[in-house]
Amino acid sequence: MPPAITSKQNPRIKQAAALRNRGEREARRQTLVYGARETQRALAAGAELVEAFVCAELLRGTDAESTAEQLLGDSRTYTVTPEVFERLAYGDRLDGVIAVVRTTARGLADLTLPADPLIAVIEGSEKPGNLGAILRSADGAGVDAIIVADAVIDLFNPNTIRASVGAVFKPNIAVATAAETCTWLHRHAIRGYALRPDARESYSDANLTGGVAVLVGNEAHGLSAAWNEASITPLSLPMLGLADSLNASVAAAVLFYEARRQRK
Amino acid sequence: MPPAITSKQNPRIKQAAALRNRGEREARRQTLVYGARETQRALAAGAELVEAFVCAELLRGTDAESTAEQLLGDSRTYTVTPEVFERLAYGDRLDGVIAVVRTTARGLADLTLPADPLIAVIEGSEKPGNLGAILRSADGAGVDAIIVADAVIDLFNPNTIRASVGAVFKPNIAVATAAETCTWLHRHAIRGYALRPDARESYSDANLTGGVAVLVGNEAHGLSAAWNEASITPLSLPMLGLADSLNASVAAAVLFYEARRQRK
Repeated sequence: MPPAITSKQNPRIKQAAALRNRGEREARRQTLVYGARETQRALAAGAELVEAFVCAELLRGTDAESTAEQLLGDSRTYTVTPEVFERLAYGDRLDGVIAVVRTTARGLADLTLPADPLIAVIEGSEKPGNLGAILRSADGAGVDAIIVADAVIDLFNPNTIRASVGAVFKPNIAVATAAETCTWLHRHAIRGYALRPDARESYSDANLTGGVAVLVGNEAHGLSAAWNEASITPLSLPMLGLADSLNASVAAAVLFYEARRQRK
Repeated sequence: MPPAITSKQNPRIKQAAALRNRGEREARRQTLVYGARETQRALAAGAELVEAFVCAELLRGTDAESTAEQLLGDSRTYTVTPEVFERLAYGDRLDGVIAVVRTTARGLADLTLPADPLIAVIEGSEKPGNLGAILRSADGAGVDAIIVADAVIDLFNPNTIRASVGAVFKPNIAVATAAETCTWLHRHAIRGYALRPDARESYSDANLTGGVAVLVGNEAHGLSAAWNEASITPLSLPMLGLADSLNASVAAAVLFYEARRQRK
């Protein structure tokens, strides 16, 4: 094990910290993964480790300790002082583990589909935490492929990674434009469904078996004009309380799990 | 309209800012609501307004502007400068509207139940944002009553209010101990269900009609020993991806909506 990095000016630290910038992430095709659980899931999903930083003083919880131990057996892992770790860290939930991993830009042609796939399309996402939360819900429900269309943010924003608990690194996620996605769904005979407050059909009355895509629009503006009436069936999710909508990752999960339930 | 409050030392501002402290909230039975939408929902849910603060320079979006206009027609509303507003504000999502409202401590005896109620029990919650998100999901699914049992945090933490988008002020929410809740459910012949990774029965195979309570445990430790096998049926929610769990508010929503679907 090499000696701990003690200087915030260490070139390796400066290079890693630069990945907080989107341009750097895209140019180098690398990103930062914050947290032990997130790092473990990212690696389990197939992300390639570039290097890892462990700060023994900040390790919190058995999860963090076991991940750190595992990483410290790897020559790509460096120990750092708390001061150096903070230079790399992002936000307040620090558990002493940060990884740099390679990102892979996948397109629609890279997706492999089973028969009767269940797909999620997330269009125009502006909020990393929100996109990550939808990816986490889709992962849980075993969605077969996810298309991130016309996102305003980059898929590998550290907050997206964190909210997705690493699911963003799964191989079945593609980035495309909304127009390409629309054509691709049509070509694969996959029916699109989207929640709309004014829809007449309830989500649970719809037949969600066969090739189905659940479409989730922008946080404020919904789906774009790329989706016309021929390409989507609007569905309603009953809102029975004060609020007129659920959190997007919650609403998406209800739809994903209903589609799964119908497929049993 | 009174002149804008320009001093951070203004006693009214200091008193309101003190409500960021739990002890103050509990002693005075008041709390702070941050945000226009949250304030509107809190008042719609029945919360009583004590006073409101509007900072014209910080108003963001039509929602905030219309709420501010409405509040400024009320003699309990004060305009404040941005500097004073920041003294009151919490976190970064500021839209120029903050309200002080009364809180009401409701117990199990205050709950009124329809026939065959759908109940949510949230036990041992430690994270305000998490508790609020579950309350939001429960509101959306039209859960008939919510019991917050043995919470570590207070129900009226500003972050809970914000994550619940005001739903925490609804009249059908009671605070109790887990032991009292267990007895109360039994007395009302309400069956308890909780998600457990090792459960044999899938949530969608269970009969969730009749009097049903969905139990959500502590973020890290699950349900406490107050719940024995006689009082809960464990259910599994299929986890079909990398992760071993969903966000608690997402998992709860899937259960709430499945119970609603079965009741149609």
